[in-house]
Amino acid sequence: MSMDPRGLPVAVVGAGAFGTALATVLAESGCIVDLWVWEEDVCRAIEEERENKVYLPGVVLPAEVRPIRDLAEVVSGKRFIVAATPSHVLREVFGRARPHVDERAFVVCGSKGIEAETLATVDLMLSETLPQLPREHIMVLSGPSFAAEVARRLPTAVTLAGPNEALAREAQAVMMQPYFRVYTSPDVAGVALGGSIKNVLAIAAGGADGLGLGHNTRAALITRGLRELTRLAVARGASPMTLAGLSGMGDLVLTCTGELSRNRTLGFELGRGRKLTELLSGRRTVAEGVRTTRSVVQLAGRESIDAPISREVHAILYEDKPVREAMHDLMHRPPRSEHEFR
Amino acid sequence: MSMDPRGLPVAVVGAGAFGTALATVLAESGCIVDLWVWEEDVCRAIEEERENKVYLPGVVLPAEVRPIRDLAEVVSGKRFIVAATPSHVLREVFGRARPHVDERAFVVCGSKGIEAETLATVDLMLSETLPQLPREHIMVLSGPSFAAEVARRLPTAVTLAGPNEALAREAQAVMMQPYFRVYTSPDVAGVALGGSIKNVLAIAAGGADGLGLGHNTRAALITRGLRELTRLAVARGASPMTLAGLSGMGDLVLTCTGELSRNRTLGFELGRGRKLTELLSGRRTVAEGVRTTRSVVQLAGRESIDAPISREVHAILYEDKPVREAMHDLMHRPPRSEHEFR
Repeated sequence: MSMDPRGLPVAVVGAGAFGTALATVLAESGCIVDLWVWEEDVCRAIEEERENKVYLPGVVLPAEVRPIRDLAEVVSGKRFIVAATPSHVLREVFGRARPHVDERAFVVCGSKGIEAETLATVDLMLSETLPQLPREHIMVLSGPSFAAEVARRLPTAVTLAGPNEALAREAQAVMMQPYFRVYTSPDVAGVALGGSIKNVLAIAAGGADGLGLGHNTRAALITRGLRELTRLAVARGASPMTLAGLSGMGDLVLTCTGELSRNRTLGFELGRGRKLTELLSGRRTVAEGVRTTRSVVQLAGRESIDAPISREVHAILYEDKPVREAMHDLMHRPPRSEHEFR
Repeated sequence: MSMDPRGLPVAVVGAGAFGTALATVLAESGCIVDLWVWEEDVCRAIEEERENKVYLPGVVLPAEVRPIRDLAEVVSGKRFIVAATPSHVLREVFGRARPHVDERAFVVCGSKGIEAETLATVDLMLSETLPQLPREHIMVLSGPSFAAEVARRLPTAVTLAGPNEALAREAQAVMMQPYFRVYTSPDVAGVALGGSIKNVLAIAAGGADGLGLGHNTRAALITRGLRELTRLAVARGASPMTLAGLSGMGDLVLTCTGELSRNRTLGFELGRGRKLTELLSGRRTVAEGVRTTRSVVQLAGRESIDAPISREVHAILYEDKPVREAMHDLMHRPPRSEHEFR
């Protein structure tokens, strides 16, 4: 089987920044894109002004992107579906879509997250929600990709992981563009986890900056933090080299060094001595890393993995531990080998 | 055997920024540090004002650090020697030191580099220069460590690699401080190479910034660039996880995101359209990455490793290829898997 992107009808489910950016990439590949939009005002703005003013302002969307509020209409008859909702509503949205999803469809998931309590990654949530699909039709896409830069066609590279690499290459052929380089990978667990857990380290890196520590400290936290998250991902079946790739290290570098993300800003304020409760009061949304840190520490407990940096971030967030004290405890751990893997 | 740092006479050979910073770390461990200083004025300033005004200004050096211009005196009778000269004079300096180096001495090398033509790493240069030492006494130290931050006692983590991990732990015990966390590793090749080849990618990252590309591009270049340097290091016997550690990814993150390094600045100016010859005229010294890029491309050729990013940096430096064209060619390569290792 070969999928020709030219004229291919595809669905993008979710019109946040990343979903909208992926819709523009697919349209440039020649696809006819039905974009599912939850909010009425966002849908109308795209329809009338060709712009997602709320989530991706300043980008003119191609005519091939049709905003639609009816989920059944969007997914019906599509052989290529991109999932791009927030991960905590993934099950709900695709539960509703299920009766309309073709059993031969490919689903490429751009959502990131670890489900609370079940600790499931997005691929698992989707395969449980769409049982009519063969598992190898469910793939995940992740990597260092600020949506605004993708939409501006700035060179970007991401990883697309699927259990069957021949099928992953089909999906790669649909999405790849000269400015959007897609690498395939067989490591679904590694790619799904890498994109989710980086926010824990963004909080840690922000915390060190807030304390006024230096570049050495930030680089050490990022590197040693990735090593502990790699141990965790390996326990879940990932390849360690995936975490050293675009969806792990790449996305981590982006998050910890790009414009101040919400997670890094939160860490920064905590480092300056403010308390989480104080920082969260009056905010409508919670930085994603706050939830993810809890999942990561649970996951480390279940898999008996030593995760000192995540544990300290957890103590900072949930036990009011001062960042300075957390740094002190990290630096006073017994001597270790860099090659110890547990 | 166990080495107690308290009262231990040690030698630090080379009073550049990093050597001087390591001398302060060793002094805080309780060692008596003889610091070999090449320049007379630097030696006098340390002696009279306790400050290395040229290479590490603003740091008061402890009384336990003695600046000495006589190399034989510095190394004689020492069981612990730190090598911290520029790598291109390593053979010459240790060739002169050889008759005075105790055959039981440990040598920890903080110098980084790949020798032109021979493509030897620093550990090989030292073992050839000091044949009286068992190979397992020669270790390398690398990681994200701006000297000025080490000297200010900002938390720093580095890797110390030696072929015999028990001996590496001895050296770890001598150097480790609450603000200077030392991890051991058996992977000498990986640690020695990681610290050397990062400057090629610093030029690439700077080039992308100079073109006005985004954070996505920089993160992709760093990540895919590290992957190709990892392939190279693995061909030389390194473990891939070492390159994902402090001496590889850690140092790379520091170089590509910290204050503008000389290599990144060079890349930035090239990205803005200036020519190498123009940038080098009127400078006394050449950014290290210019030489290293040539070594890396030679190494890739010898080992038959595909190194597209290094090759493009080489073409930018030595064939006047515009950075924009190099980026274009990188983004138009055929589709790949992230897991291809050659």
